Amino acid sequence: MTLPTDPAANLAELIRCPSVTPAEGNALSVLSGMLKAFDCTVERPVFSDEDTPDVENLYARLSGNGPHLMFAGHTDVVPPGDEAAWTHPPFEAVVANGEMYGRGAVDMKGGIACFVAALARYVERHGRPRGSVSFLITGDEEGPAINGTVKLLEWAAARGESWDAAIVGEPTNPEKLGDMIKIGRRGSLSGRITVTGTQGHVAYPHLADNPVRGMVALLDALLSPPLDEGTEDFQATNLEITTVDVGNKATNVIPAKASATFNIRFNDSWSAESLQAEIHNRLDRAAEENRLRPGREEPAAFDLEWLGRASPVFLTRDEKLIDTLSASVEVVTGSRPGLSTSGGTSDARFIKDYCPVVEFGLVGQTMHMVDERVAVADLETLTQIYLRFLEDWFA
Amino acid sequence: MTLPTDPAANLAELIRCPSVTPAEGNALSVLSGMLKAFDCTVERPVFSDEDTPDVENLYARLSGNGPHLMFAGHTDVVPPGDEAAWTHPPFEAVVANGEMYGRGAVDMKGGIACFVAALARYVERHGRPRGSVSFLITGDEEGPAINGTVKLLEWAAARGESWDAAIVGEPTNPEKLGDMIKIGRRGSLSGRITVTGTQGHVAYPHLADNPVRGMVALLDALLSPPLDEGTEDFQATNLEITTVDVGNKATNVIPAKASATFNIRFNDSWSAESLQAEIHNRLDRAAEENRLRPGREEPAAFDLEWLGRASPVFLTRDEKLIDTLSASVEVVTGSRPGLSTSGGTSDARFIKDYCPVVEFGLVGQTMHMVDERVAVADLETLTQIYLRFLEDWFA
Repeated sequence: MTLPTDPAANLAELIRCPSVTPAEGNALSVLSGMLKAFDCTVERPVFSDEDTPDVENLYARLSGNGPHLMFAGHTDVVPPGDEAAWTHPPFEAVVANGEMYGRGAVDMKGGIACFVAALARYVERHGRPRGSVSFLITGDEEGPAINGTVKLLEWAAARGESWDAAIVGEPTNPEKLGDMIKIGRRGSLSGRITVTGTQGHVAYPHLADNPVRGMVALLDALLSPPLDEGTEDFQATNLEITTVDVGNKATNVIPAKASATFNIRFNDSWSAESLQAEIHNRLDRAAEENRLRPGREEPAAFDLEWLGRASPVFLTRDEKLIDTLSASVEVVTGSRPGLSTSGGTSDARFIKDYCPVVEFGLVGQTMHMVDERVAVADLETLTQIYLRFLEDWFA
Repeated sequence: MTLPTDPAANLAELIRCPSVTPAEGNALSVLSGMLKAFDCTVERPVFSDEDTPDVENLYARLSGNGPHLMFAGHTDVVPPGDEAAWTHPPFEAVVANGEMYGRGAVDMKGGIACFVAALARYVERHGRPRGSVSFLITGDEEGPAINGTVKLLEWAAARGESWDAAIVGEPTNPEKLGDMIKIGRRGSLSGRITVTGTQGHVAYPHLADNPVRGMVALLDALLSPPLDEGTEDFQATNLEITTVDVGNKATNVIPAKASATFNIRFNDSWSAESLQAEIHNRLDRAAEENRLRPGREEPAAFDLEWLGRASPVFLTRDEKLIDTLSASVEVVTGSRPGLSTSGGTSDARFIKDYCPVVEFGLVGQTMHMVDERVAVADLETLTQIYLRFLEDWFA
């Protein structure tokens, strides 16, 4: 059996599987075939839930005596959007001018293709590693993320699996391969504010209570002053108001209600609880400050509802994992990667409860866009970095 | 022919005509019958427009040698709302506990019923007045107001009609009959602000530009400081934000656009033009102040659109008209009415281009509400006030 040592060939096979979330699209079967070529055990648990579609997942392990490394990722992809707008079709893996086109090219079938190639080369060169390598691959990262990584980790842990370190193969590099390893992530918290007033005619404001006046004061208090200036390891906490809605079509009517939703990406100077308390304080103060209506005696009547569960902040401090990966990047690319905690959430937030985790993969520029594509040269470079990491981490 | 000297009987007849705007509902025909009882000439011009329903109107005149007084009003009424919620049906004029129930009881079939009764009593007592009295009555005050008072005034003026003074019979009294004569009105101006940003992911705010941030700054600049503190004749200018809308349902997405609409009721320290300039200045300054995004270099990209035509501020300074009416109120009720410029717009804003105009009618508390009603005693009192005014004004 030929070992899957060519990352471009691996990726082309994966791109040709139309695994638009939550469809498996044969992607996990193709991956399964590659992994069986070097004696991995492969399992395909399917997880269900009342409200969301069933999701296929994959857990594979190449066992050896020694530490246990997890590679984590997903084969599902976001929809291609307007297929007619693509220069080359999204599920055909056409290579043009040194770039392979296709949905998932960088996010993140490409990362999987490279890690598979790196492990295949390792086995070809060194035989089995002095330890274990497992693949924890979900088909539900781009979807609701309910029947994917969280359940797959629980399922594996329940069977006695434990890991010493994990790499998530998401596209972490903003500009060029080797730019950035992600070693943590800000937390995320969303809330909705509703201000209730009293409807009335604009000509008789003393008989009404315009909730928009209160809402502007509350939103202003959310936006300034800044929540913090950032910490040694993290960017500043950032709050974005994602919507404000009243829905009143009559210009002579003072509306009865206004609502707004916000999301906060927060750093390690906060816990979700301390941040919720700060937001409550800011809103209470703004409502009390009585600047909501001239001559007004009561604070704005507002309601604050937290949406969903907060996603906590985390920071990986495993020196062996971070240093080995950084050194591998430097050896292959010639420059040291930055260590970052910026950007959006990933499945690393779930894995961090089981073992130290970092994220490193391809360049993310075209992810989720029409003409998602990857330089074929980058596939080879990332494979070399992963291979070097395997060699050093298991040394 | 019996003269229509009983205001309660007149009002009961009018309430029983279901003249929900723009329907005539027989109300103008009933009124026409009353006016013909004392030799008024009555005309019923119908005005049309491409986009709005045809509207029936009425112009009647009792001619004499001397000054010309106009009584203006409308027989159309707002819809009754939930008829089942009424204690007595909205179009039956039931009298209970000294109050007559019905849609239009105070706004403003009641005012018409009283003025007709007052003029009937005048004619009964004195014969024709030393001058002319005309009725300018529309069926389109509560509707789009396109085929009503404006066209009726133009129509009458084109036929050579001119007036020395006008009374609009809208319900002007906030608490009790005789409280308030309205001698002018603030202007009205509406605008819409649109802030355009750049859509993006909440985790990457530096790649996006949240228009809500700019919108909060712009709205804050509209709301404070106050536009003025009021003038000798007018309340303070007041701005109400009537709606803010974004319509973004995803809490992880920074939206591309936010819009807001506002209405200003302004006093005689502004013209529509000077006020528009002030609003422009405030918005430009807030956008320039660069507090819209930390590290941001450009002002918020906003667009300001003025909605419809501004309604100008006006103040009636005709001493004979104001003093005669005030004295009539005082003689009948025992207390001097306040002279006010507060509240919403009325058709007086159109009449003021033809002659001095004041507004005086019933108590407005139940207008536009379920169980709109009027004290039968108030109908008699208002009739006596109008009668005394006719006697003194034509003296």
